[in-house]
Amino acid sequence: MADKIFRVNMTDLSTSIEDVPDDWAGHGGRGLTSTIVAAEVPPTCHPLGPNNKLVFAPGLLSGTPAANSGRLSCGAKSPLTGTIKEANAGGTAAQLMAKCGCKALIIEGQPNNEDTWYSLAISPEGATISQEEEVVGKGNFAVTETLRDRFGGYQGVIAIGPAGEMKMAAANVSVKDPDGKIRSCGRGGLGAVMGSKQVKFINIDAQEGKVSIADPEKFREANKTFVKALVDHPVSQALGTYGTNVLVNIINEAGGLPTRNFTAGQFEGHEQISGETMHDMIKERGGRVKHNCHKGCVIQCSQVFNDAKKQYKTSGFEYESIWALGADCAVDNLDHIAEADHLLDDIGIDSIETAVAIGVAMEAGVLEFGDGEALVHLLKEDVAKGTGLGRIIGGGAGAVGRAFGVTRVPVVKNQAIPAYDPRAIKGIGITYATSTQGADHTMGYTIATNVLGVGGSVDPLSKEGQVELSRNLQIATAAIDSTGMCLFIAFAALDDETCLPALIELINARFGIALTGDDVVNLGKYILKTEHGFNLAAGFTNEDDRLPEFFTTEPVPPHNVVWDFEGAEIDTFWNF
Amino acid sequence: MADKIFRVNMTDLSTSIEDVPDDWAGHGGRGLTSTIVAAEVPPTCHPLGPNNKLVFAPGLLSGTPAANSGRLSCGAKSPLTGTIKEANAGGTAAQLMAKCGCKALIIEGQPNNEDTWYSLAISPEGATISQEEEVVGKGNFAVTETLRDRFGGYQGVIAIGPAGEMKMAAANVSVKDPDGKIRSCGRGGLGAVMGSKQVKFINIDAQEGKVSIADPEKFREANKTFVKALVDHPVSQALGTYGTNVLVNIINEAGGLPTRNFTAGQFEGHEQISGETMHDMIKERGGRVKHNCHKGCVIQCSQVFNDAKKQYKTSGFEYESIWALGADCAVDNLDHIAEADHLLDDIGIDSIETAVAIGVAMEAGVLEFGDGEALVHLLKEDVAKGTGLGRIIGGGAGAVGRAFGVTRVPVVKNQAIPAYDPRAIKGIGITYATSTQGADHTMGYTIATNVLGVGGSVDPLSKEGQVELSRNLQIATAAIDSTGMCLFIAFAALDDETCLPALIELINARFGIALTGDDVVNLGKYILKTEHGFNLAAGFTNEDDRLPEFFTTEPVPPHNVVWDFEGAEIDTFWNF
Repeated sequence: MADKIFRVNMTDLSTSIEDVPDDWAGHGGRGLTSTIVAAEVPPTCHPLGPNNKLVFAPGLLSGTPAANSGRLSCGAKSPLTGTIKEANAGGTAAQLMAKCGCKALIIEGQPNNEDTWYSLAISPEGATISQEEEVVGKGNFAVTETLRDRFGGYQGVIAIGPAGEMKMAAANVSVKDPDGKIRSCGRGGLGAVMGSKQVKFINIDAQEGKVSIADPEKFREANKTFVKALVDHPVSQALGTYGTNVLVNIINEAGGLPTRNFTAGQFEGHEQISGETMHDMIKERGGRVKHNCHKGCVIQCSQVFNDAKKQYKTSGFEYESIWALGADCAVDNLDHIAEADHLLDDIGIDSIETAVAIGVAMEAGVLEFGDGEALVHLLKEDVAKGTGLGRIIGGGAGAVGRAFGVTRVPVVKNQAIPAYDPRAIKGIGITYATSTQGADHTMGYTIATNVLGVGGSVDPLSKEGQVELSRNLQIATAAIDSTGMCLFIAFAALDDETCLPALIELINARFGIALTGDDVVNLGKYILKTEHGFNLAAGFTNEDDRLPEFFTTEPVPPHNVVWDFEGAEIDTFWNF
Repeated sequence: MADKIFRVNMTDLSTSIEDVPDDWAGHGGRGLTSTIVAAEVPPTCHPLGPNNKLVFAPGLLSGTPAANSGRLSCGAKSPLTGTIKEANAGGTAAQLMAKCGCKALIIEGQPNNEDTWYSLAISPEGATISQEEEVVGKGNFAVTETLRDRFGGYQGVIAIGPAGEMKMAAANVSVKDPDGKIRSCGRGGLGAVMGSKQVKFINIDAQEGKVSIADPEKFREANKTFVKALVDHPVSQALGTYGTNVLVNIINEAGGLPTRNFTAGQFEGHEQISGETMHDMIKERGGRVKHNCHKGCVIQCSQVFNDAKKQYKTSGFEYESIWALGADCAVDNLDHIAEADHLLDDIGIDSIETAVAIGVAMEAGVLEFGDGEALVHLLKEDVAKGTGLGRIIGGGAGAVGRAFGVTRVPVVKNQAIPAYDPRAIKGIGITYATSTQGADHTMGYTIATNVLGVGGSVDPLSKEGQVELSRNLQIATAAIDSTGMCLFIAFAALDDETCLPALIELINARFGIALTGDDVVNLGKYILKTEHGFNLAAGFTNEDDRLPEFFTTEPVPPHNVVWDFEGAEIDTFWNF
């Protein structure tokens, strides 16, 4: 059975199953969500109004046995940035949705009665809409537990927490992982869009569904090569041992670990929050060093982090969250950070945006830098409950800056800058500035080449080669984000010449087609231009492709460098 | 003595007196503030950072005996809109500043220590900077009373209240009037810019200063003609009797009185808050029906409004405030509205922006529509004290919409739409959309011709002629805003053919020059293009010249009409 488009209209509560238009047929994941949003969403519409659409799409390889192919893309116009947006996450939903024959789920319209909430059920027969009361108002963990009891543990769940219900601009779309824990489509407030449709959760039951593969033998062979490339790469191995948090010491050493709201590039407490320290604490406390967020992952960068009483506290405990709650807020206590991480998952709110927002609030004097207990209290008593202060924090770093008149606000297109100071690691600054989606390291991860020596080496402190580096990586990333692959395959893809051909072979074997490397590059370019076109039509200009003023005037220690790209230099990014 | 530029640098706490550059010599008021901001402020700078500049300029005729010439222009890049901004107010400051020989006061830079506050003193000898402690943290009324005791009652005072100190995006620059009460440069958060410079107040002591007039006899004659035109016009007379609040019944009758956060165009409680009712209450309670905000005003649209115990409550009790706190929040109790108006003056925050923000908060369920007591409580306990909720309200209507996920948010360029529904009175919609400064009725008051029959008649419900009407009025207004004249001279200027020539003659007699009517039109065009150029360089596009989406989809009763201008039609505004 050919894959279909599942469409849900929340205005008249109707659903339909549609054939895939020819223009969409070759797309999956981000390529498909961006194609659909660009085709069907008016660029100047209100992101929380009935004319925005929330689109979910598994990747081209999701639901197959291809390693690391379980990412779910979610797209819409972002209430945080006003741009087009794609955020993706692991968990079980992508694979199950693919097995339902659902190439994309489009949620459009808006109920007229704001007090009524709904759930969606996805199966191979299509989508259905039900009214929902029991889990409305609940945190994500209570939602997944209740739904496990209601439906059984094998079903996929996509949900929003209180942040999404309150339509906070930093709200996540949360995705259940194989252990019932939470993965997040985190950037850009897509949870608020889901909240604006009044959909509390989506339940996915694949029943006996299966993804068909045109050439199973070729597929198996390609996957073997692909897996070998992944597991052999040293970065994959470091990720498996220390998680993404292996980066704290590396980025601190590079002088690019933003500290105390981006006033320094090194954190004196880095050892206490590092991946190495975390690894030892996990071992001592009987947690798990390796853990996978979806079936088939061979890197396993996740982990299970227990508290001092050896009780489960959090998983998927990422560098970005630990940096933002840690160095950026000057908190050096990993247990406070883990508690905050758990709360962010439960509230369903972006750990980068929210923690950077708290860093700005610390600068404004709302709480003290380094006060991890106050940070946890703020999340629990204000953000989760939607007090005035909680609404400000939940609006993201830009909202905090505006509310308190702070000028040192690390955002691009109103989205918080992640864990790499662009003054000290200049390639990532180009990615932050030019990304179609606001500041986002995952759009073109130049850290690989600027710091990790993957895919060659480009001096992080020099302007030379950064625009080209970011452009090449952004094109490649857009293509990878279409496959359902985790972005961490990029390290192997950049260094191991067998990796990318094997990935292309997997796609060809799945669909019985004959893509080449050039096709993949062209796909990436098409996606970036489609997204950029949406933003231009929404009123964005080159002047939006800029870093905040303070980066150009405040040198960051230890290198004492500023952001020194001229606008015209940045704008050459789009010369392709 | 030729007029000079007074410059104050708050980074190094230095001051200087400079000759007026040739390019600036012919300008005053808005023309001068916009010229200086465009020349010296980087369009993409942070509005609250050291690179923004706060510019004050009296009008070309301020300080002379010309009737109604006491408006003070204040300009900067706006923290609310991100555009260039000019806001003007009456009070005594413009006339005294002109008598000091100060053509413009430029405040630039920013102190390094955020805890130290300053005051400025302006005299014919220039500007001086002092540290200030006593009045920091105080409301505007306490400030003006303390300064009256310190300096005497004849001096001019420009101050910020708590809102400006907290750098709220809706904060006013407040100006003392002849009775020690408050007038406001209200739109666009210029008080936050003053707060970001850490200047609590500016004291102006003109000593024996005097404005020189090149041809006093010609000046006297022209002023006689000008005064006669003003006092003879029926709108001037209505303004003197009922204040600007004469408009409640008129605009309600026209079906354009935005009610309950712009969901209706008529308010069932309009009689209780109308100018006629207010007039009777003032008489009963021993207030004053007529009152002038600056010396030489012959219209006297202000009034003194006493409470039920016949004690002073507020003055300058304007239609915009009464509409916004009244119809837009569905409050029909004029005493609650007066109490709120008093608080807004004391806090130093824009009555339009703040009240429209509260209307959006009412829609979000933060408080109930119609609950005037809760509204007063919110201002007193939250906004004045800067609680989380207070910071959201103080950030303006757009901030409330973002914090609570409301989609019916009446703003253009993030500035709240004033008291005329653009669906029912379409000309003003063109002004809201195209104004260089966000939604602002005073930029091109088409109500005159759409509703009041002044300057001809253009059907408010038809699209025909609205762009041209708004364009002509915006050009004329920019020129009038340069003279120091109150905008209410425009009614006479549109209808009485002796008025505008007399105004031009006043300028010619003051400076010994020979301007023509064409020169005045060209001045207006130059100002609009200068402002527009700043905005384009800051990253604004035609897509920002649009009304919010809901106006295009929600018909407003009683006419049940939507906003039906295409973007391309709006953009013809700039064809001049």
